[in-house]
Amino acid sequence: MIKEISVKTNERNEFINITDEIEALVKDIKEGTVTIFCPHTTAAITINENADPDVTRDLKMKFNKMVPEGEGYAHAEGNSDSHVKSSMIGPSLTVIIKDGSLILGTWQSIYFCEFDGPRSRKVIIKY
Amino acid sequence: MIKEISVKTNERNEFINITDEIEALVKDIKEGTVTIFCPHTTAAITINENADPDVTRDLKMKFNKMVPEGEGYAHAEGNSDSHVKSSMIGPSLTVIIKDGSLILGTWQSIYFCEFDGPRSRKVIIKY
Amino acid sequence: MIKEISVKTNERNEFINITDEIEALVKDIKEGTVTIFCPHTTAAITINENADPDVTRDLKMKFNKMVPEGEGYAHAEGNSDSHVKSSMIGPSLTVIIKDGSLILGTWQSIYFCEFDGPRSRKVIIKY
Repeated sequence: MIKEISVKTNERNEFINITDEIEALVKDIKEGTVTIFCPHTTAAITINENADPDVTRDLKMKFNKMVPEGEGYAHAEGNSDSHVKSSMIGPSLTVIIKDGSLILGTWQSIYFCEFDGPRSRKVIIKY
Repeated sequence: MIKEISVKTNERNEFINITDEIEALVKDIKEGTVTIFCPHTTAAITINENADPDVTRDLKMKFNKMVPEGEGYAHAEGNSDSHVKSSMIGPSLTVIIKDGSLILGTWQSIYFCEFDGPRSRKVIIKY
Repeated sequence: MIKEISVKTNERNEFINITDEIEALVKDIKEGTVTIFCPHTTAAITINENADPDVTRDLKMKFNKMVPEGEGYAHAEGNSDSHVKSSMIGPSLTVIIKDGSLILGTWQSIYFCEFDGPRSRKVIIKY
């Protein structure tokens, strides 16, 4: 099955937890994998800690520090930093499904990473 | 099916668009995924913008700035920066196929990232 | 099949070669893919050179240089650098299998990347 999730972002850089929407889609799959694909070149998909919101805050802070906006880039749209972050984190992840649930560690959630928001985005899910 | 694509690179750092070759392979697949795998440790696979060539130019510039050549590395071959970039971007991606086409965003293309060229490279495709 | 590999790490930052354990699992698969998934948010999975141990030494050195410990992070556990490295390298990889063997380049091995050890870790394998 191929499904689409809509994601509304509110900031230029934002990590949005999309685990529950993916979990809901795969609940009838006994065993398999799910591919989570971001069809945008200034966003990405990652997995990281969901317990302390300071973790995603630190991720945003550090990626912005490593890849700041407006650093002598040629691309006229002014969002080359967003494209760099997209390739650093990557546009797709594969997660394993067992008995209708995603196999994730205790602290893991799946995040849509916005690097050029706010925008209306989508994520493609194949399982 | 498992197929191999040949890629000839011309520069030390180069992003080569391999989307059309992959699209041609999967044209008879109604629904599925394709795994794109780089069997080299100084190269990688990414997806990013194809419309303005300044984007891949900025990607190369920024990755070289974050990971410059010859920065006190131990590895005697002098290409440790290439190995670091390979692990930062990653050796494999999975893309979703529907009705014989790759599901990619409007501006997305799949790139072979050369970080230690020029060389003759290959990419393994499984669909 | 879904299997679990145990990994014991001995240092805060360590790259451990897990290729042989994965190769042993897939030896009866004629053609397919294997998903290698790290269920931890301060570790990752990568593929890089196995011939010269200086390569993984340089990888550790450079990732620590780009993402040092204790750099003004908010997260109270003091391991935000580990979370950043985890998202930079990524928690999962897909490798292609043919005739009971992983399709890897001559110099490639699969590494569990520990960024907050020493710990007892696991890796989930689906093939």
